[in-house]
Amino acid sequence: MKLHPMWENYPALSKELTETLKRMEETVRLKNKPVEQAIKETIHAGGKLLRPAYQLLFSQFGPEQDRDKAIALAASIEMLHTATLIHDDIVDEADLRRGQPNIRSQFGNVVSVYAGDYLFVCCFKLLSDYSTSLKSLQLNSRSMEKVLNGELGQMDDRYNYELSVKEYLENISGKTAELFQLSCSVGAFESGTSERFAKKAGDIGLSIGMAFQIIDDILDYTKESQEIGKPVLEDMRQGVYSLPLIYSLQKNKQSLLPYLEKKTEMTEEDVEAVRKIVERTGGVGEAKKLAAAYTEKALKEIKKLPDTSLRTRENLFSLTQLILDRKD
Amino acid sequence: MKLHPMWENYPALSKELTETLKRMEETVRLKNKPVEQAIKETIHAGGKLLRPAYQLLFSQFGPEQDRDKAIALAASIEMLHTATLIHDDIVDEADLRRGQPNIRSQFGNVVSVYAGDYLFVCCFKLLSDYSTSLKSLQLNSRSMEKVLNGELGQMDDRYNYELSVKEYLENISGKTAELFQLSCSVGAFESGTSERFAKKAGDIGLSIGMAFQIIDDILDYTKESQEIGKPVLEDMRQGVYSLPLIYSLQKNKQSLLPYLEKKTEMTEEDVEAVRKIVERTGGVGEAKKLAAAYTEKALKEIKKLPDTSLRTRENLFSLTQLILDRKD
Repeated sequence: MKLHPMWENYPALSKELTETLKRMEETVRLKNKPVEQAIKETIHAGGKLLRPAYQLLFSQFGPEQDRDKAIALAASIEMLHTATLIHDDIVDEADLRRGQPNIRSQFGNVVSVYAGDYLFVCCFKLLSDYSTSLKSLQLNSRSMEKVLNGELGQMDDRYNYELSVKEYLENISGKTAELFQLSCSVGAFESGTSERFAKKAGDIGLSIGMAFQIIDDILDYTKESQEIGKPVLEDMRQGVYSLPLIYSLQKNKQSLLPYLEKKTEMTEEDVEAVRKIVERTGGVGEAKKLAAAYTEKALKEIKKLPDTSLRTRENLFSLTQLILDRKD
Repeated sequence: MKLHPMWENYPALSKELTETLKRMEETVRLKNKPVEQAIKETIHAGGKLLRPAYQLLFSQFGPEQDRDKAIALAASIEMLHTATLIHDDIVDEADLRRGQPNIRSQFGNVVSVYAGDYLFVCCFKLLSDYSTSLKSLQLNSRSMEKVLNGELGQMDDRYNYELSVKEYLENISGKTAELFQLSCSVGAFESGTSERFAKKAGDIGLSIGMAFQIIDDILDYTKESQEIGKPVLEDMRQGVYSLPLIYSLQKNKQSLLPYLEKKTEMTEEDVEAVRKIVERTGGVGEAKKLAAAYTEKALKEIKKLPDTSLRTRENLFSLTQLILDRKD
């Protein structure tokens, strides 16, 4: 079980993340062995494991240091995240995930529906077995509700050239930031911190998640040209407009609309033309400012966290800097 | 909100089932209004509400008579059931559900994926808000795991002419009986009965569910010919072989295989020919015997239940007779 190289500088966390993967794998038990195998491969397909990492770090703040429990709950959040990815691939008709053939392309939509459902169930299985109270399950259900509202909102907003920054932020708040928030708050709460502290942990997670998704969307516009193409092309063709484009549309609708109105007929050249307009007219720059604001907010709040013997605050700070400063 | 006419003889239960529907509707809150509407229409599309009915009846045995809680938990089980139906329709490529256009045919697979996911979440939302302890959530997660194992098992067993009665029973145990078992045990347990009593309630539910599914499968072979066709045809074409056919295959493989081997190419005449062979060679008769055995077992155990002021035992007995004696 190989972790992403980003964890090399965090040996203790690395160990727990490896155990988290193992715990995820052990939780999957299906009679249908090919599907079981496919789910296990998805688990090991090289996700960054950011959500369980934040959950594990925030679980170091409370008085209850049951690491077996913390790992089981970290596995639950990553299984939830993986479930949403598998179902998103059905929705997006995607065949690759992290560069590998996904469950959909290997087994079709049918198996993908059940595989995602099964991972949802695994998440709730771990949660109901390891949580101290019903509170975490309430938080989890509500987060999932927001995630789905975000997904459905984004679907509703396809090809909306008038999409406001506020609406975009609402969508990514559900689609991405919510699970970061959940990870941090459940991590803290289940280690026995006060509800007030768990809420603060969640707020930090929310800021990190917002910055993370905005940066993801910016990278679509700034990666080297040989790398870009497919993801931006697909999102744009399918009418999913992200922050750099939204900013640019506010002032340059006339030059952008002729390309965008081609919808699924957009060529790679069209996408490249849009990309250049968005960069030239400051859309990328403005998006970077907003990402920086969320990053600043998260880092400022992390600085105020209490000391732990495990240097948790320092690890949270450097990890957050690292992932919000990434170039790919 | 109109209930199935079968509830006319159960006025008190009718009232609670109407409130259950209302509670389901109130729980669905999506920003995407067309999808919200589609989910609400699915809720009101005329399901029999058997699972919440059993749950409500078994919740009359314990000392805690909080009817608002019992109704919320009854709503949770029906939402779980509805979620599985919506996802099954994607898997089966079905366009109708209970004779009405389903979510899939109105909005496509994409919305169906999220709509089903959303109902799963609603189920866990109600459960985590209203359950007394984590126990019910553990039971629920484990049941869902069995349901999915049953669905995936059935998928695995498609076109298996050697399918044994045992394997068939395992599949329907997951696919159908598990949720009946869950309804009865959670109903009892959350009203404050002992775990032992809740387990017994679950056993009764399991027998009812097994009989219910076998009878469903028998009806495909015995309904008047103008009514049959589509459902049997589709199941048979897709390689889902049910109990009457399995019994018949044990002794008459040579006459049945030429039809079945046509798989999706089977014509209505082929299906009718299979139907006649299955009936003539005793497949239907043997299946009826097994259904009767499960029904007997359930009724015998119901008779042993304690008295309640609401005549719960008598209602359970007559309801179970009614649904297991149905002709459509």
